[in-house]
Amino acid sequence: MQNMAKAHFGLIGLGVMGENLVLNAERNGYSSVVFNRSREKTDAFLSGRGAGRDIQGAYTLPEMIAKLERPRRILMMIKSGGPIDAMIATISPLLEAGDLLIDGGNSLYSDTERRVAELESRKFGFIGMGVSGGAKGALEGPSMMPGGTRESYLAIEGLVQKMAAQVEDGPCVSYIGPGGSGHFVKTVHNGIEYGVEQILAEAYDLMKRVCGLETGQIADVFAQWNGMEELESYLVEITEICLRSKDPADNSDLVEKIVDVAGQKGTGLWTVISSLEQGVPCPTIYAAFNARVISSLRQERLAAEAVLHGPEPLSPAGLCAPDKAMAPIRDAAILSVITSYAQGMALLAAGSSSHGYDLDLSSIAQIWKGGCIIRARLLKRIQDAYERDANLPNLMMDPWFADQINRRLPGLRHVVSSAALSGVPVPCFSAALDYIDSYRSGRLPQNLVQAMRDCFGSHTYERLDQPGSFHTAWIQ
Amino acid sequence: MQNMAKAHFGLIGLGVMGENLVLNAERNGYSSVVFNRSREKTDAFLSGRGAGRDIQGAYTLPEMIAKLERPRRILMMIKSGGPIDAMIATISPLLEAGDLLIDGGNSLYSDTERRVAELESRKFGFIGMGVSGGAKGALEGPSMMPGGTRESYLAIEGLVQKMAAQVEDGPCVSYIGPGGSGHFVKTVHNGIEYGVEQILAEAYDLMKRVCGLETGQIADVFAQWNGMEELESYLVEITEICLRSKDPADNSDLVEKIVDVAGQKGTGLWTVISSLEQGVPCPTIYAAFNARVISSLRQERLAAEAVLHGPEPLSPAGLCAPDKAMAPIRDAAILSVITSYAQGMALLAAGSSSHGYDLDLSSIAQIWKGGCIIRARLLKRIQDAYERDANLPNLMMDPWFADQINRRLPGLRHVVSSAALSGVPVPCFSAALDYIDSYRSGRLPQNLVQAMRDCFGSHTYERLDQPGSFHTAWIQ
Repeated sequence: MQNMAKAHFGLIGLGVMGENLVLNAERNGYSSVVFNRSREKTDAFLSGRGAGRDIQGAYTLPEMIAKLERPRRILMMIKSGGPIDAMIATISPLLEAGDLLIDGGNSLYSDTERRVAELESRKFGFIGMGVSGGAKGALEGPSMMPGGTRESYLAIEGLVQKMAAQVEDGPCVSYIGPGGSGHFVKTVHNGIEYGVEQILAEAYDLMKRVCGLETGQIADVFAQWNGMEELESYLVEITEICLRSKDPADNSDLVEKIVDVAGQKGTGLWTVISSLEQGVPCPTIYAAFNARVISSLRQERLAAEAVLHGPEPLSPAGLCAPDKAMAPIRDAAILSVITSYAQGMALLAAGSSSHGYDLDLSSIAQIWKGGCIIRARLLKRIQDAYERDANLPNLMMDPWFADQINRRLPGLRHVVSSAALSGVPVPCFSAALDYIDSYRSGRLPQNLVQAMRDCFGSHTYERLDQPGSFHTAWIQ
Repeated sequence: MQNMAKAHFGLIGLGVMGENLVLNAERNGYSSVVFNRSREKTDAFLSGRGAGRDIQGAYTLPEMIAKLERPRRILMMIKSGGPIDAMIATISPLLEAGDLLIDGGNSLYSDTERRVAELESRKFGFIGMGVSGGAKGALEGPSMMPGGTRESYLAIEGLVQKMAAQVEDGPCVSYIGPGGSGHFVKTVHNGIEYGVEQILAEAYDLMKRVCGLETGQIADVFAQWNGMEELESYLVEITEICLRSKDPADNSDLVEKIVDVAGQKGTGLWTVISSLEQGVPCPTIYAAFNARVISSLRQERLAAEAVLHGPEPLSPAGLCAPDKAMAPIRDAAILSVITSYAQGMALLAAGSSSHGYDLDLSSIAQIWKGGCIIRARLLKRIQDAYERDANLPNLMMDPWFADQINRRLPGLRHVVSSAALSGVPVPCFSAALDYIDSYRSGRLPQNLVQAMRDCFGSHTYERLDQPGSFHTAWIQ
C-alpha cells in the first residue's frame, strides 16, 4: 500500500457529474478518493481523466474511508431515492462521530429532511446539496445549494467556495439553511427552469408558425434578446445555439428533426406538488410542466389533428416585428419569465416559513447568478429586490419589476390574444397573463363561487360590509 | 329495554348529511340505529326530525351494535382522516366476521385503499363511498359511488339503490370497483365541479366587467343557457338563483356583497395531485383550483391593484351579444366545461388502469346524471360516448364532442383573445383553449426543449426520421 497523504474528501459515484466535480476540486487544490461500485469505472477514470492528479482510487468503502482525513467528508453523486438510502445504510456503520455525508443529487427535499434528522441523531453530519450547471458546470464551476446544520456546512465551506462558479460578488454557493432546504431550493430552481424553457419554446413556435420565420431568423432574434438585460441568460444563449445547429447528414436544421416530446426527471413535478401543498400559486411553472406531459401524448395528438380543426395560423397585425426584435413576443417572454421567478420566489418564501428554513432570498438569487442552468442577468435585479425588502410579498411588487410589467403588459396581451386567434397553444404565456391579471385584481369573481358553495353545501360566506360568517337559504 | 326489531343499518354521525341519509333510507323502508358522540344530538334528532319514524337511537357503540341485524352494516358520516381511523379502531373490536363499515365522507382514496385492505384481512367488509348532492341530495336522493369488494357492495345494494337519485335509466349508484375506487371517483367528480364553478364565475365576470351587464341581466343569460342541452345543469341553475338573490337589508344584489375569496376542502387539491401523479393533463381543473388559491390572497391583490396597471375593460367587437345568449361567452363556457369533463374522465381512465379499478366510465357518467352537484344533461352524451367506445382516448374524440369543439372553438378563441386585451383574467377559459389547441397539434415546440436538455444535460433526444436515442455536441 502506498504511503500517500490522507485525502481531503471522498466521492462515491463516477458518473460524469461526479468525475467533473472531483476534477474541479483537484484543480482548486482539494485532493480526493473516488469510489465506484464497478472497479472498472474507477480504473478507467484514474488512468484517464484522473491520471496525474491528486486523486486516489478505492475499491471498497472501508478502503476509501481509511484514506480520508478526519472528520471525513464524503460526497455521494449517485441516483436519488432508494440508492441513497441503501448507501447510507452501508456506509454509516463505517463512519465515526463528526463524519459528514453530502448528497449532491436531485433528492426529494422531504427525504433529505428525514436523512439529516436521522444521521444527526447518530452524531454524523448530513448535507443535502443541490448542484446545478450540468456536466460543464460541474467541471468549470457549478451553482451549489447546501442545506443541513451550519456546523456541517462550515466543514465543506472552503471546498465548495473554491469549486463554485464565481460572479462579481463572490462564489455561487452559500449556506442555505437547515434540513432539506438545499434540495428544496434546487427543486424550485428546476421548476423555474421548466418555466423558462417552455416560454422560449412558445416564443419559437409563434415565430415559426404565426410569423413564418425561418429557423436561422429565429436564432437571430434570440441573439438579439440575449443582448438585453432582461433576457441575457444561459438558456437564451443555448436556444440560439440549438437553433443554428445543422444535421451533418443534409445540413438542414437539426432542431426540426427532433421529436416534440419533452422528457422530465421529477423535480418539475415536485415543484408543482410543493406549490399545491404550500398554497402558493405557480401557474406558469405548472403550465410548463403540463406542456411536457401533453407533449408526451404524441400519438393521441397526431390522431386528434385530423379530427379537431383550427384556423390557419395567420400573422395578426403588429404581432410579428422582426425589425423590432419581435417586440410583442419579446415582451411576452420577459414577463412570463418574470412570473416564473416571482412564483418560484414566493414558493421559497412560503416553504421557508412553513419548514422553518429561514431562507435568504437575496442570497439565493446571488447563488443562481452563475454556474446554474437558469443563470441570467435578471437575477441581479432579483437579488437587489430582496436585498431592499426581504419580505417583499411578490417580486412583481418591487418597483423595477412593476415597471417592467406595466411597460410590457400590452405586448403580452397582444401575444396571448393573437395566439388564441391563430390556434397556436401558448400555455405559459396565457398562464403568465392570467396570473398577473388575477394578482392585480382587487375584485375577482370568486364571490359567485362562494354563493354557489353556500347554496349547495351551506359552506357559508363572508361579506364585504360586515364581519362574520353568513348563510342564506338561497332556494326558497 | 324495548323489544324492537333489529334495525337494517347503523349510522354514526348526526351531521346534516347523516340525518338526511337516515331519513331518506327510512322513507324508502330501511330502518336504522343512529349514534352520535354527543348524547344531546341523538336525543334532539329522535325527538325532532327523526320522531315517529323507524329510527332508533343508541348512546354507545355496543348498544348500536346490539340493535343491528347481521351482518351489520354501519355507515360512518364523520370527518375524514384521523377521526375515521379512530372510529375504526374503536368499533372494530365490537364487530364480528362479515360485518361491514361504510365511509360516506370525502376520504382520500389512498386512505380508503389502506382501510379496505386492513379490514378485509380481518374478515370485515369496508366500503369507501363517495356521496354527492349536498344536504338536499342526501335527503331526496344523492349520487353515490361505493367502492370495495363486490361482496360488500351486494350487502348494501338494495339500500343504496332505493336511496339514490333516480334518473330515466335507473338509480344514480352502482358498484364502482375495488379498494379506494369509490373515493377516487368522488374526488375526480369534485375536481370537475371546481372546473365548472370557475368557468361560470369567469363567464359572469366577463358579462359584468367587459360587457357591462347588470346582475339581473346576467341571471337572464344563465336562465337561457340552462335551456340548452349543452349547459342544462344544477350548477347553471343555482348560478341563476344566486344572481337573483337580494340582500333583505336594501334589496341590492346579494352576490355583490360577498367577499371574493373561495374556500376549499381538499378534494380539488387531491384531484390535481392525482392528475400529476398519473401524468394526465388536467389544466382546466388545475386553473380552477389555482384561481381559488389566488383569490385567497385578497390583501395582496388589493395592494397590487394600485401598482400594476391594466387597460380599462372595453367591450371588443362582437364579444357581447345579449340578444344571442352571449354566444361567444356561451361557447367558451360549453367548451371549457367539456374540457373539465374530458380531463376528469381521462384521469379516471388512467387511475383505473394504474390502480386496477377496472372502472366503467359509461356507468360513472350515468351515476352523475342525477343527485350530484355536477349533474347535467351533458352527462348523457358522456355516458353514450363511453358506451360506444369504452377505450375512447379522450372525450373530445367522440364524434358528438368533436363536433361541439369544431363548431364552438371560434367563440372560445374570441373570448380568450378579448379577455386578454381587456385585462380580465380567464384562467379556465385560456387553459381550456390551450388544452384543446395542444391536443390537436400534431407538432408542438417541445423539440426545442429536448434540444436544450440535450445541450446542457446530455439527456439525449429522439428523431423524427430514425429510431434510437441521439446526443449532439451542440457547443463546439
